[in-house]
Amino acid sequence: MASSISSAALKADLVIFANQIIPVVPHNVVLENHAVVVRDMRIVDVLPRDEAAAKYDATQVQDLKDHILIPGLVNSHTHSAMTLLRGLSDDKALCDWLAQDIWPTEGKFVGPEFVRDGMTHAAAEMIRGGTTCSNDMYFYPQQAIEVLERVGMRGAVGQTVMEFPTAYASGPAEYFEKALPFLKQYKNHDLVTATMAPHAPYTVGEASLLKVEELSKEHNVHINIHLHETQAECHDSEHQIKASMSCHQSDQKLRPIANFKRLGLLSERLICVHMTALTDEEIKDIAEAKSHVVHCPSSNLKLASGICRVTDLLKNGVNVAIGTDGAASNNSLNMFAEMKLAAILAKAESKEPTSVPAATALQMATLNGARAIGLGNEIGSIEVGKRADLVAVECDNIEMLPMYNAISHVVYVAGRENVSDVWINGKHVLADRKMTTIDEAQVKADVRKWYSNIREFHASLQQNKN
Amino acid sequence: MASSISSAALKADLVIFANQIIPVVPHNVVLENHAVVVRDMRIVDVLPRDEAAAKYDATQVQDLKDHILIPGLVNSHTHSAMTLLRGLSDDKALCDWLAQDIWPTEGKFVGPEFVRDGMTHAAAEMIRGGTTCSNDMYFYPQQAIEVLERVGMRGAVGQTVMEFPTAYASGPAEYFEKALPFLKQYKNHDLVTATMAPHAPYTVGEASLLKVEELSKEHNVHINIHLHETQAECHDSEHQIKASMSCHQSDQKLRPIANFKRLGLLSERLICVHMTALTDEEIKDIAEAKSHVVHCPSSNLKLASGICRVTDLLKNGVNVAIGTDGAASNNSLNMFAEMKLAAILAKAESKEPTSVPAATALQMATLNGARAIGLGNEIGSIEVGKRADLVAVECDNIEMLPMYNAISHVVYVAGRENVSDVWINGKHVLADRKMTTIDEAQVKADVRKWYSNIREFHASLQQNKN
Repeated sequence: MASSISSAALKADLVIFANQIIPVVPHNVVLENHAVVVRDMRIVDVLPRDEAAAKYDATQVQDLKDHILIPGLVNSHTHSAMTLLRGLSDDKALCDWLAQDIWPTEGKFVGPEFVRDGMTHAAAEMIRGGTTCSNDMYFYPQQAIEVLERVGMRGAVGQTVMEFPTAYASGPAEYFEKALPFLKQYKNHDLVTATMAPHAPYTVGEASLLKVEELSKEHNVHINIHLHETQAECHDSEHQIKASMSCHQSDQKLRPIANFKRLGLLSERLICVHMTALTDEEIKDIAEAKSHVVHCPSSNLKLASGICRVTDLLKNGVNVAIGTDGAASNNSLNMFAEMKLAAILAKAESKEPTSVPAATALQMATLNGARAIGLGNEIGSIEVGKRADLVAVECDNIEMLPMYNAISHVVYVAGRENVSDVWINGKHVLADRKMTTIDEAQVKADVRKWYSNIREFHASLQQNKN
Repeated sequence: MASSISSAALKADLVIFANQIIPVVPHNVVLENHAVVVRDMRIVDVLPRDEAAAKYDATQVQDLKDHILIPGLVNSHTHSAMTLLRGLSDDKALCDWLAQDIWPTEGKFVGPEFVRDGMTHAAAEMIRGGTTCSNDMYFYPQQAIEVLERVGMRGAVGQTVMEFPTAYASGPAEYFEKALPFLKQYKNHDLVTATMAPHAPYTVGEASLLKVEELSKEHNVHINIHLHETQAECHDSEHQIKASMSCHQSDQKLRPIANFKRLGLLSERLICVHMTALTDEEIKDIAEAKSHVVHCPSSNLKLASGICRVTDLLKNGVNVAIGTDGAASNNSLNMFAEMKLAAILAKAESKEPTSVPAATALQMATLNGARAIGLGNEIGSIEVGKRADLVAVECDNIEMLPMYNAISHVVYVAGRENVSDVWINGKHVLADRKMTTIDEAQVKADVRKWYSNIREFHASLQQNKN
């Protein structure tokens, strides 16, 4: 960066020049021929290319000739380690899929090593696909966190709570016991944010829910929960029917959101995942409480759970983010696909072709995700002061040409394969499609090892059933 | 292929060995470690790897180590040359999108050169994405055909008919005049199949529709038409309302399908595109007539047109194929994305998670598309006697691992970027991601030229509106 080497130049760790930058804030804006300046893991300037060249003396310079630079995508709901179960079982209803295939297989295999290898695999898939932060709900959070720190990926990691025992914990008491040190340790951490993750209203009792709320309030951490995922969940709760896969239902004849309202769980710390079954009144309750919604369109369609009323939620001012759900029900952690589907599905669901325009979909996949996990001031947009989580999308290819509008193209045209470079906290974790912190060959070898064992076990499950 | 060189070996042009072959016929089968043998543009054998190595002496051998081999995908509805308008206008209702942006821009630019360059661009995008055959509805079919022959891609090409004048023809008489030589020439052609393509019930009058049917019958060519694309189309037809974008409505108070039935247009030669507004009776009429349906899920969602009742159509025995629609309304010609969306959307639409399992989605994107355009005996599956239209999907990557079921992975996991090799009529048109018949740099240069002119014109349109 010869032109900038002068005594007056300001020091920077990294300057990225790009033809087109979509900062997300301000909304629906494309900055042409600008630069993003990074120092000490954060964005310190966003300014025209020429001014940046004159003003900064950077240790590293990246000149993106044919790219769009966007904030890193936030996958607001996933079960990362389940990449190891990708495509194990499909084309079944949620309850059969869980009870016949997923839960028995998890019971056999899930442990610290499963989470370590699955999380590494998921991180590789997400980073290669432009996702810089995930909101994870699974077991063995400590192993997931070790992976995030090792590979330099950002994540909110949930401390699971369920009534029934798993390999991870014998019951609610142990889940909570394991939660405490975790909640204290991962606050204001450079990469990791702690959350509480009670599984669902039908698997977590009211006493446990109240305890979750207490811890959430005390430690100011957000709560993830699968909520109103299907009409059946709401119907069973309202009629006090104990379904085959549930271990708990409310004592009151209430739908889960109404019961949460009664228990005092609706708050700005609550992240409601799925929400395909919503009345107008429930939307108003969620909006009033400033709770967050995570829309997982592929998973909801694939399991025939239903379609979230995204348009009405947004109209009521609810913060709606986007998640892939786990790779066992999607079957990918592909946020570009999810972003496009969220944009087009909302139009059909609401019968309004103007609903969720491209700029809104991109905001849902970035800033709204950041807000959902309490990081709205830290990530989700390309603004001075925020963490330098950045993604370059390469546009000089047959599939992306011509490009009349960069925002439209990021949402409606780009695939995750168009991601060329990714930075997290200013660190170049994907450089021209090569991962710098993850050994790709090792990940593949580890996944193949799990595959052989899981395939054998699942085949025996199928045989025993027949 | 040393082991096969013996006096007893049979000659072949090409033998492709693959770990997994999904032939589509028989249904829901994966052949492990098999080979496909090609001679004179057709598949002459499908057999175990070892047997093939002993039996055939091939001019070319392709050993696919970590791949799934599938039949080439059939994009059953598109307007190929509209790739040049990709992302020009989004987030609008169908009628505004057409009347405010698409039609004025087409009026200014569409001509033989536009179709030549746009079709070449589309062919490049489709071949790179595993689509070996498209069913095209646009203007200047002769130019589209010249491109298909030049690049070695298969296509059904529609002779458009509309009541109103375009640059291509002054009105119905000229459309029909241009149709005749085209219908005679492209029968039993190695790559090209002629079809008639009346635009829609609201843009084509009854006299023209009857003439289309007459020509279709006489020359035994199929008829493409946008049909029941929206509820509004059906409502307007039933109430004899002439909408702003229409130049014709039925003289009878009938929905379009009922009117087509009255006119004798429902037949096994009719390809009904979109069909988002369907009654039970209409589904029975379509099934009885053996007419074909092309489902375009991305386009239908994006324009908020509605959702096709695919599950009910399939239950009634209707042949349902899949199309991307044009790149101006999708905004991609990505059949992998469309196939996944068709599979998952059908489950939510029908509330049946078992609807359109992966094997059915793959059949819709291959064999059903072939049947729709009258090529069911020629393409759409890996069977002896059929054309060698084949696609290799590379599986040794982070995103595709682990793979428990190849059919599930092709539909729910693979992206078009995983396509490594494509053969059409046995010709290797994509070899390890390199196009062999299309000059990629030239396509990009041509597209950029159109982009500059179209962007300028569209900006002036927007200014005049304001």
